[in-house]
Amino acid sequence: MKLRLRFPLLAACALAAALPLVADEGMWMPQQIPDLAPRLKELGFAGDPKSFADLTGQPMGAIVSLGGCSASFVSPEGLIVTNHHCVQGALQFNSTPERNLIVDGFLAKTRDEELSAGPGSRVLVTVSVREVTPEITGKLDPKLTDRQRFDTIERRVKERTAACEKGGLRCRVASFFEGLKYFEIAQLEIQDVRLVYAPAQGIGNFGGETDNWQWPRHTGDWSFYRAYVAKDGKAVPYSKENVPYKPAHWLPVSPKGASPGDFVLVAGYPGRTERHETYAQVKERTDWALPRYVRRSKEMLAILEETTKGNKELQIKAETRKRGLNNGLTKNEGVLEGLLKGGILAKKEAQEKELTAWIAADPARQKEYGNVLPALNALQVENEKTRERDAVLGGMSFNSALLGAAQGIYRLSLERPRKDIDRDPAYQERNWSRLRERLERMQRTYDVRLDRATFRYSLLEAAALPAGQRIEAIDAAAGFAPGMSKEEAAKKADAWLDSLYAGTKLGEQAFRLGLLDKSTAEVVGTKDSFIRLAVALYPLNQAIENREKEVEGKESRLRPAYMRALLAWKGGLVAPDANSTLRITFGKVQGVSPRDGLLYLPQTTLQGIVEKATGTGEFNAPARELEAIQALRAGKKTPYLDPKLNDVPVDFLSDVDTTGGNSGSAVLDAQGHLCGLLFDGTYDTVASDFLFDTVKTRSIQVDSRYMLWVMTQVDGAQHLVKEMGIE
Amino acid sequence: MKLRLRFPLLAACALAAALPLVADEGMWMPQQIPDLAPRLKELGFAGDPKSFADLTGQPMGAIVSLGGCSASFVSPEGLIVTNHHCVQGALQFNSTPERNLIVDGFLAKTRDEELSAGPGSRVLVTVSVREVTPEITGKLDPKLTDRQRFDTIERRVKERTAACEKGGLRCRVASFFEGLKYFEIAQLEIQDVRLVYAPAQGIGNFGGETDNWQWPRHTGDWSFYRAYVAKDGKAVPYSKENVPYKPAHWLPVSPKGASPGDFVLVAGYPGRTERHETYAQVKERTDWALPRYVRRSKEMLAILEETTKGNKELQIKAETRKRGLNNGLTKNEGVLEGLLKGGILAKKEAQEKELTAWIAADPARQKEYGNVLPALNALQVENEKTRERDAVLGGMSFNSALLGAAQGIYRLSLERPRKDIDRDPAYQERNWSRLRERLERMQRTYDVRLDRATFRYSLLEAAALPAGQRIEAIDAAAGFAPGMSKEEAAKKADAWLDSLYAGTKLGEQAFRLGLLDKSTAEVVGTKDSFIRLAVALYPLNQAIENREKEVEGKESRLRPAYMRALLAWKGGLVAPDANSTLRITFGKVQGVSPRDGLLYLPQTTLQGIVEKATGTGEFNAPARELEAIQALRAGKKTPYLDPKLNDVPVDFLSDVDTTGGNSGSAVLDAQGHLCGLLFDGTYDTVASDFLFDTVKTRSIQVDSRYMLWVMTQVDGAQHLVKEMGIE
Repeated sequence: MKLRLRFPLLAACALAAALPLVADEGMWMPQQIPDLAPRLKELGFAGDPKSFADLTGQPMGAIVSLGGCSASFVSPEGLIVTNHHCVQGALQFNSTPERNLIVDGFLAKTRDEELSAGPGSRVLVTVSVREVTPEITGKLDPKLTDRQRFDTIERRVKERTAACEKGGLRCRVASFFEGLKYFEIAQLEIQDVRLVYAPAQGIGNFGGETDNWQWPRHTGDWSFYRAYVAKDGKAVPYSKENVPYKPAHWLPVSPKGASPGDFVLVAGYPGRTERHETYAQVKERTDWALPRYVRRSKEMLAILEETTKGNKELQIKAETRKRGLNNGLTKNEGVLEGLLKGGILAKKEAQEKELTAWIAADPARQKEYGNVLPALNALQVENEKTRERDAVLGGMSFNSALLGAAQGIYRLSLERPRKDIDRDPAYQERNWSRLRERLERMQRTYDVRLDRATFRYSLLEAAALPAGQRIEAIDAAAGFAPGMSKEEAAKKADAWLDSLYAGTKLGEQAFRLGLLDKSTAEVVGTKDSFIRLAVALYPLNQAIENREKEVEGKESRLRPAYMRALLAWKGGLVAPDANSTLRITFGKVQGVSPRDGLLYLPQTTLQGIVEKATGTGEFNAPARELEAIQALRAGKKTPYLDPKLNDVPVDFLSDVDTTGGNSGSAVLDAQGHLCGLLFDGTYDTVASDFLFDTVKTRSIQVDSRYMLWVMTQVDGAQHLVKEMGIE
Repeated sequence: MKLRLRFPLLAACALAAALPLVADEGMWMPQQIPDLAPRLKELGFAGDPKSFADLTGQPMGAIVSLGGCSASFVSPEGLIVTNHHCVQGALQFNSTPERNLIVDGFLAKTRDEELSAGPGSRVLVTVSVREVTPEITGKLDPKLTDRQRFDTIERRVKERTAACEKGGLRCRVASFFEGLKYFEIAQLEIQDVRLVYAPAQGIGNFGGETDNWQWPRHTGDWSFYRAYVAKDGKAVPYSKENVPYKPAHWLPVSPKGASPGDFVLVAGYPGRTERHETYAQVKERTDWALPRYVRRSKEMLAILEETTKGNKELQIKAETRKRGLNNGLTKNEGVLEGLLKGGILAKKEAQEKELTAWIAADPARQKEYGNVLPALNALQVENEKTRERDAVLGGMSFNSALLGAAQGIYRLSLERPRKDIDRDPAYQERNWSRLRERLERMQRTYDVRLDRATFRYSLLEAAALPAGQRIEAIDAAAGFAPGMSKEEAAKKADAWLDSLYAGTKLGEQAFRLGLLDKSTAEVVGTKDSFIRLAVALYPLNQAIENREKEVEGKESRLRPAYMRALLAWKGGLVAPDANSTLRITFGKVQGVSPRDGLLYLPQTTLQGIVEKATGTGEFNAPARELEAIQALRAGKKTPYLDPKLNDVPVDFLSDVDTTGGNSGSAVLDAQGHLCGLLFDGTYDTVASDFLFDTVKTRSIQVDSRYMLWVMTQVDGAQHLVKEMGIE
């Protein structure tokens, strides 16, 4: 991969100006790092930048994905460190009314005590990334219709994936730079993942929703898993006979943490950024999608609050959903604020005008790119026509786990008779175990009262849709009609919901799982009310899917051209948008002025825990931690004290470029040692997902010294510290 | 005044350690300043510290009080600068539905357009302060009872005051150091005060309640008055014939403002601090008084909110009250937090233990002071016995302006027949015009609906009092009984309120003022329902007053001894508690870390106004100001730009020691020029009123450059800038 078009232009300017304050944009692909060697050296990296391109070497061989979170090996015995908030599912899975691991945390004193993280837990180790652009988009007949283009590309992706997976690895062919490039990523997939250690909620989630996305922060957001494999080394599901996986590489954990001005490098799996969206796309977000998201999140949270009031069991079931809603709500409020008030949208608009002018200034460019933006904008207008209906319909499968399950079961029954290569990618055989696990995991959060309350919300949304965007299957079943009053719609919805929930057995795990290998006739034959609803909605779902495939086919012509224009205009080495693949970002530990008159200091300390601790709720620091702080104040020695701060550092800010999915990422110091874990970004800069803010962007990390101090002084996890090679 | 017992001990230590970070405690009496000359020089003061002891010289001759706020002369034509929030009454007095000065601000383009600030407005210029301790507490017969001691001291104070006022000045004999010292303060009292200029609410109160007590701050909290006197120079009430007062001294206003590290000195009238309260007193505040204050403020605010909903006229009437409640609420929440969580109460306890040990360590000290603290603590226990009832009764006169007026009218009718020297000090002839003005000003905020709603709140408090602390006159009139249910009490209260408000004419200004010179028989003869209530409550009011006088007599023995012990123990030069007399405090412009991980920068800039401006509500920066900022950004020159910030500074932090009453105080630079106006303290340090926090205490000032920039670039007040001698 060489996108080093005119490196000096952009990057050298950044180099000159950057050192004290400016953050470097870039969630780089590991193979891009050697080209960035001068910048790494300048920032203080002491090792060989080329090493990052070798995914099976040190340190990249130690970096793993948990699917949605990042993590890393930190011992030769398969010990993995990630964020506390990344092991919530495992804590929930192992909690009982008598033993609430979410609140109290967990520590396995021996290997025998380590607990399965539950179905669907995975550790993914990327072992190769290679460009396959010619195989995917090479030699496409220009005469293909949009739909044919889509189908051809999808088929080629499926074929490549199948070929790649023959060796037993898990593969993915992913698009980069808006489809300009394709890469085939092969991962070792470890399926037996066990919970080793999680601190109490009062450390691991100290600050809760109040502090989420905020600075100053005092969260001890770490936890430990261990990867297990069969005795022969094969990756197999959980079994008592399994033994710890012995990774070829693991990260040494530094007892020195990170200090202001220090070089830091973050390796992990950022989920999604949209920095190459057009202005019209971002504008739709500020005009419609984000305000809708914020409003819905608030309304849904109120419904969950109301439904679970006074019921502990329901509260536990709704916990993950509520955290997700709160997290997304705060983030998207921040994005909206950054785009509008922070001026990111205006910058986007100005940039697009400049790009258009640059294209128009040269006849050759005009010929090559002149029609691209107008065509993309026309597509955007088209997409917006049924966006209300499409969003409500999509939300339904999410708001009713029963409907989502029914739709999955029904669709699988339709896909199964086909040849695997002809199946929809999500329903290919390689994903069947995942479909099953999802239906198993559903039991952790499913309750008929919750399901009904949130599905009712979706139904009322459907009832309120404008004429021309109605969901007819719902109208027919529930008796909705356009223009119906809210009160009447609610009455109709409640009546229908009564019969719907009375007519389903999908809430029973055995029944649900039993349908997974049944034929369509058998599935439909159950006459389960939610299956019937899935069947009724299927034609509309298909119509939307078909339209989307056509749009994607069209975009597969336009977006790569748009990207080529952007790259030619911008010049320099550019990082692709995040797409849940392995990335590297680097920078320095430093504070920031988030707004006039205020400065975020780059580090927090134990002192802040004492200041914030309330003994209850979100700031419930454990008594034994407060005692350990008192002991420290009274003179107890610790190697984790920062002499400049005269305290143990807790969290720190750095200017690395990260987003959701980076949670749990290893933070490496200039020597390539793990000096911290990334776990959040600051509220003031979440809009960087749309256009990078070089001044204000900051990520939040926990310092390895705080982790080691708690492990040795508070939680009695000396054996793990020793396992990581620290005496 | 010489309290320079062992100056080097405390102050020299402070000197050594203080320069970079530590704030100096001390609201100094002007005559103490010459003793602090080394510290002033060290901090950078360039003038002669002795000059501050001369109240009739430069600069102290320019410092004035507005009664509750501080201010200063800034031109030879009697122009006075103070805070915007100190001229609210004048803005309210001159507002009409068509011309809302509170919102839009005001600027007199000529002297003729200057508006009377309304009845009761005063400018007080302190012209002399002299110690009169021997005259007040000298040669008191030790055999006097506590009440006799009180009466003797009160009579001596009245006699001295009368003698002092013979020359036409306004005098006050005030206690310092808990009655250890008395000083006679003579003030020139200017009675014709006119409003010259107030910026719009979106500048003068930018940030509103949200930013109150907070940093970063962007409030342009200044306004201008002018003092007027008769042509012969006499201080007389408002008259068209009056001419601007020509002060002997005025402050030059600096166009250079203040920058980090700069020396600043603040001269003004701090209201009240309680740094010499005993631990038991402060403990009662955290246990009872402050939580009660916080709870009541919230409940009262909710009642005002409810009562004024949808009624603009009522909202204007309730505005001052609501601002006062909100301000006190936030401040007292901060005090409570500082005392408890901030550890001030614990420090107080530790200090008192040390003091007790120090006293006990020496037989002579034990003999002199050993009984003082136990006796004060016993008094405290006694006071707490009826505190609920006393507080509810006191709150009634405040919650019903009609009851307050009735009580004042009735009491005056009782006092008037006496010789002036025998009257209660508040009802001496020298205060009659003030009593009248208060009854006039009442019209600005009085409305029967508001009065009834808040008085009802007091009645329900009275209904809920415990047996043994009942207010019998209220019980008898309203039909309350101990243990009555809330609902029944409310019903009784409402019924009684109906008849009460139907039976009064005190809401009519003419009727109310007409009673001021009536005899007791005539007043009682009106049979006005609120007069009857005042008469019914009088015996209990008298009983409480008598008990308080006895307590004060006892305290007049104990507190000075306590203070002597404290001074002997602490050593060094000590400033007395604030008591609304003229004080000086000094320090440096500097930021602070209010909590772990966060730093308040020492200055804010126009940039923050752009960041905060919402175009509505509390952050409604005027469009013309935002345009002026745009013009500045586009290159328009201004002498008020700070080259380091590359922006016009707005507000700044300093470590001076101030409290309520300091609002509007002149901030002087090293040359004695006015570089800013003090207008607030930070939330994190309001508990400094009880024990000075040398690390975190910060005051908030507006920079003279922001004031001059707005006056010239936004508000068109060039003529005033010119009058202040700036071209």
